[in-house]
Amino acid sequence: MTDANTALLETLASRLPAGTLLGPDDAGARHRADWTRVNACAPAAVARPRTTEEVAAILRACHEVGQPVVVQGGLTGLAGGATPRAGELALSLERLAGVESIDADAGTLQVRAGTPLAVAQAAAEAQGLQLALDLGSRGSCTIGGNIATNAGGNRVIRYGMMRELVLGLEAVLADGTVLSALNPMLKNNAGYDLKQLFIGTEGTLGVVTRAVLRLHAAPRERLTAFVAAPSFAALVALLRAARSEFGGELGSFEAMWANYYELAIAALKANPRPFDGRHPFYVLLEIEALEPVAATARLETFLARLLEAGTAADALVARSLEESARLWRVRESAGEIMMTLGIPMAYDVSLPMARMTAFLERLDAEVPAVLGDQPLYVFGHLGDGNLHLVTGLRSLGQVAALDQIVYGGLAGFGSVSAEHGIGQLKRHWLSASRSPAELATMRLLKSALDPRGILNPGRVL
Amino acid sequence: MTDANTALLETLASRLPAGTLLGPDDAGARHRADWTRVNACAPAAVARPRTTEEVAAILRACHEVGQPVVVQGGLTGLAGGATPRAGELALSLERLAGVESIDADAGTLQVRAGTPLAVAQAAAEAQGLQLALDLGSRGSCTIGGNIATNAGGNRVIRYGMMRELVLGLEAVLADGTVLSALNPMLKNNAGYDLKQLFIGTEGTLGVVTRAVLRLHAAPRERLTAFVAAPSFAALVALLRAARSEFGGELGSFEAMWANYYELAIAALKANPRPFDGRHPFYVLLEIEALEPVAATARLETFLARLLEAGTAADALVARSLEESARLWRVRESAGEIMMTLGIPMAYDVSLPMARMTAFLERLDAEVPAVLGDQPLYVFGHLGDGNLHLVTGLRSLGQVAALDQIVYGGLAGFGSVSAEHGIGQLKRHWLSASRSPAELATMRLLKSALDPRGILNPGRVL
Repeated sequence: MTDANTALLETLASRLPAGTLLGPDDAGARHRADWTRVNACAPAAVARPRTTEEVAAILRACHEVGQPVVVQGGLTGLAGGATPRAGELALSLERLAGVESIDADAGTLQVRAGTPLAVAQAAAEAQGLQLALDLGSRGSCTIGGNIATNAGGNRVIRYGMMRELVLGLEAVLADGTVLSALNPMLKNNAGYDLKQLFIGTEGTLGVVTRAVLRLHAAPRERLTAFVAAPSFAALVALLRAARSEFGGELGSFEAMWANYYELAIAALKANPRPFDGRHPFYVLLEIEALEPVAATARLETFLARLLEAGTAADALVARSLEESARLWRVRESAGEIMMTLGIPMAYDVSLPMARMTAFLERLDAEVPAVLGDQPLYVFGHLGDGNLHLVTGLRSLGQVAALDQIVYGGLAGFGSVSAEHGIGQLKRHWLSASRSPAELATMRLLKSALDPRGILNPGRVL
Repeated sequence: MTDANTALLETLASRLPAGTLLGPDDAGARHRADWTRVNACAPAAVARPRTTEEVAAILRACHEVGQPVVVQGGLTGLAGGATPRAGELALSLERLAGVESIDADAGTLQVRAGTPLAVAQAAAEAQGLQLALDLGSRGSCTIGGNIATNAGGNRVIRYGMMRELVLGLEAVLADGTVLSALNPMLKNNAGYDLKQLFIGTEGTLGVVTRAVLRLHAAPRERLTAFVAAPSFAALVALLRAARSEFGGELGSFEAMWANYYELAIAALKANPRPFDGRHPFYVLLEIEALEPVAATARLETFLARLLEAGTAADALVARSLEESARLWRVRESAGEIMMTLGIPMAYDVSLPMARMTAFLERLDAEVPAVLGDQPLYVFGHLGDGNLHLVTGLRSLGQVAALDQIVYGGLAGFGSVSAEHGIGQLKRHWLSASRSPAELATMRLLKSALDPRGILNPGRVL
């Protein structure tokens, strides 16, 4: 720790309420890494502001002396964005939390950045509405992190990503300027839509402190179906048929390749298995029903038609909330299972459906040279063209070769990040998805908004 | 015209194919103003590039000498954004037009900026899909203008604004740099989402040349209902009931106040009138039906329930496409009617539903002092909190006083532009909707991306 650091911490301690600043020894392990645990590193200190003004005071002081800051939400990221680098001050939003207000008529929710997603969801549900963003880490991830990473999840096919749910927000710029744009309106074309600067930019252009989110009507019921598909072509046909049949009622379409499915079934000790037979592909399909009885009948007819056509090899509709939750567990246990595989490694790629088969065949051919017997498990949000590839590494030395196969195989047509972001871990691969002119424009924005480069340096760019 | 201008035009003429550049005498009246006709002014010249490279060559040359450029699409704007100011070169995208490709499986359409919206819509329809953006000027407005203004229209309640339909785009920066970000994927979090810089920024940060748009499944049928409401409270209750009953099937909810409705009925010489009686409010409601027969029955039951409860004073369901088109004409003739009223004046404000009654009562009290007997006609996209107020002025001298009443009455809680943008005409009112910190950040972006201020100067900021 340099003298300048020590002086800064003293300045901060004098300007902030007692207990806001934790030294590296008091902060504990929590602030050292995100879910990947890769390159864990204790921050120089942890600042835990309770108000926007405190966030502004912290950034102003850091900006003055050029102190780098890492912004932390629920630390559930998978790209190393919130993992500190040596000497960084961790700015944790954990105490800037809570739902501020909810307007059921307008369908809006105002919330602080450190609020866990599940808490915001529950506030909406209490009013008969829904906050449509949903992902497995809902209990830990925070609204601020969801915004900073433009989170995706299970209902993108119906409601879009986090970007589409943010009506307004408040952010603090690198120099401590508070930019309050807490717009509650669905439509507002008065000048540039500045909130876009802070959505999906992973805390590199500003720190989101509060937001106004759009709520949707809660569906009367969610119907869950589980379907086995005999081939990838059948899986694609199933998606097309489901879109055409259910339109805006199709809430989720989550695909699992057999290797992931069998891994999850074994990990969950699922007994009985959802289906007796073994199949190459499985889909978890959710319908948001306006008229549950009619929709159930329609879903059953739909599945019967697919079975008869051979598009589906087997199918079932959950008969209870409990059965639905059990099926969802197969898909959502990915996060926990990953942790048991070794050094967890999760790819989050996006590519045109027409390219998926060739891409995965190439992986099948090339990955064993790096991973040996350890498979690359595949699942994802097929309706969004988003696949997750998950494995456990024996050593970090395997990363470069595996990255080369996965990201190298996408260059020119795919994205190295569909929903997890770039963070520290995919930074060197950003140029596989973006052109030199795009990268130059990103740098232009970064230097305009954070000229001293104190916000999440070494992330994204 | 200065010597520098003349030299620039000679340079451009030498670098561009013959016929690309039109002098002020050859250009005709078309390029002198947008639909408002306010402050019409002949441009110094009109450049009509056919390719992105030609756009880049034009901007590079203008950037070098600091020549201001006004970007023109279909010239259907209502904020003076495309109306030239003295000495500006008009960059018209009219010849950079046409659908480049369509991928029905992926649901994407790649299109050039100068393509009329209706042409892009038709290309989607030919594949059994829909481009969900829809507005009255569909035959003239262009995709580039729709993107630059983040167009709204009749289906925002279901599909969002243009921003939500743009997957990727190509833009030319002020200095001629081509930024190609023609992403076709639904999800792509690889670095900053640069397309946001060009959506809704009204051509002030770059010129959109091509785009990849998201298509949706075409509904099997659109059901149109026309409902009369006895009070504003009933209108709001009707919206809430429709949202709850139809969820994602509710495609449009267009409200008309009696004064607008009677004006349109008279202008269209509608005979018979849709309803015998006279009512204070009317709603045009569209349902995108997955199962037309069941949905029709459900719509009729829904309307019967509202009539019984007194929420609706009268109601009908269109029995044919022709009847549906007739009802839509009442709402969509606003643009044409406006032109007959004097100097057309259209406000496009956004405000919380809970404030609408008080806002409109204030207008009723204060507007006659400016307009005399001439009413301010009211209609709009109620489901989005977006009202249009339209009138015909006797003189431009009335503008300032009327602006003061309308925009002044919104300060602190509403937006001076829901969907039309700021252009030249609302520039001085932007501060009623945006804070000093927001305006400073907008200026920061403008100077980072267009340091010489050549792109649409005097618009927005």
